[in-house]
Amino acid sequence: MSNETIARQLAHRTIRAFSDQTVNDQTMTELFAVMNRTATSTGMQSYSVIRIQSLVKRQALAAICRQAYIAAVPQLMVFVVDVYRNSRIAASQDCHLTAARDMDRFFQGFTDAALAAQNMVVAAESLGLGTLFFGSLLNDPDQVIELLELPELTFPVVGVGLGYPAQEPQLKPRLPLSMKVFSDRYDHNAFDPSLLEAYDQEMHVYYDLRDNGRRSDTFSRQVVTRLTQSLEKRAKILQSVRHQGFILGLDP
Amino acid sequence: MSNETIARQLAHRTIRAFSDQTVNDQTMTELFAVMNRTATSTGMQSYSVIRIQSLVKRQALAAICRQAYIAAVPQLMVFVVDVYRNSRIAASQDCHLTAARDMDRFFQGFTDAALAAQNMVVAAESLGLGTLFFGSLLNDPDQVIELLELPELTFPVVGVGLGYPAQEPQLKPRLPLSMKVFSDRYDHNAFDPSLLEAYDQEMHVYYDLRDNGRRSDTFSRQVVTRLTQSLEKRAKILQSVRHQGFILGLDP
Repeated sequence: MSNETIARQLAHRTIRAFSDQTVNDQTMTELFAVMNRTATSTGMQSYSVIRIQSLVKRQALAAICRQAYIAAVPQLMVFVVDVYRNSRIAASQDCHLTAARDMDRFFQGFTDAALAAQNMVVAAESLGLGTLFFGSLLNDPDQVIELLELPELTFPVVGVGLGYPAQEPQLKPRLPLSMKVFSDRYDHNAFDPSLLEAYDQEMHVYYDLRDNGRRSDTFSRQVVTRLTQSLEKRAKILQSVRHQGFILGLDP
Repeated sequence: MSNETIARQLAHRTIRAFSDQTVNDQTMTELFAVMNRTATSTGMQSYSVIRIQSLVKRQALAAICRQAYIAAVPQLMVFVVDVYRNSRIAASQDCHLTAARDMDRFFQGFTDAALAAQNMVVAAESLGLGTLFFGSLLNDPDQVIELLELPELTFPVVGVGLGYPAQEPQLKPRLPLSMKVFSDRYDHNAFDPSLLEAYDQEMHVYYDLRDNGRRSDTFSRQVVTRLTQSLEKRAKILQSVRHQGFILGLDP
């Protein structure tokens, strides 16, 4: 742990319970300033953020996410792809460009939104805030689009919640880096059953401690469980992307 | 600037020229440890990293990116979606799951990769390193896939380079937050031509200073230029995604 930034990053865990302490405006202003400085693809800044303040919308979002606690997170934000803003800037110069609808613009915006969200999360944690990401809003992109009145050429990417933590969970173990980081080519031989077994054992101990013996689970079992669940709307995410005006660029 | 982490984040700029000082192994180990702690969708860790060390591969990548300096960046990495590893874990338990091929797994991996890359970049900058992202590897995903021998259910997301900086560029101005951050719904009225004009002027001054009067540009002009460029292979990125074994989930 060579400095405070890295020490905080190495202590990252998801927070799901928050204290009553409000996150003041000055703090949010600072966090948005950090977000705004994040690297962005070709400088285009193709993302926006919707802060969810209405209780009705918070509850609707929590229902889509199937995570009731989301409605109660002190600060709640949805990061979205936004190619719409730049297409308006172009239109204001009488340029109506179909290339704005290409899927690579979508992916640029998707990357911009994710980088901005992570950068903000690091800043928040450096101030002692707890954070959580939720990708579960993609359980039903169409409903999120309707709820947040997202125009064409925008699309939800990930949700971020933050507040002062009311819990201090254990660090969740990770797969060893030797199975994730390769040199010059994808390394099939990095897949090491004995390392996986050791990781499964580590996860087993983690769940056992976390849930006081009520839960017994391993990473390998989770992989099977999670990959078995097929949510039809989630699998059809590209239908929603197309519905938002992006051209998928597929040969017939 | 309430702490060192945020001060560094607010000073972020892309670095394209690096000193000869090598980034030692201990530093890289620390950065990968931070990366490995990044939040990941449903704990699945659906990303991997390929470090590009071979000179031939660096040059090939720089050619794809059309940015010659990329070959010379001290540490060069490609972050990839990796659902392949988990599909192998499932297969090792005799589970062969088509849901692993669903597009929502792709988007989960894409988000995981982007968050991990940004987290690593913040850690690197906290140590005084300079960083750059390059999305230009998506100029030709098929060639990157071949070059890095990426198996099915993997896909390149973004490249990251880092090293000790040999330049100190000005901060690049950003669109004002009032055009990016909205409350409860997408705000069409946040599009403010007078704010845009002020931002265009700010960008004009930035380029004028940066390039000693040789370049005159504004954000609005860049938007038109960039949105006009349509790279056929980029627009067809989903063809490459499908080629990697993902099921697009589109109704006929």
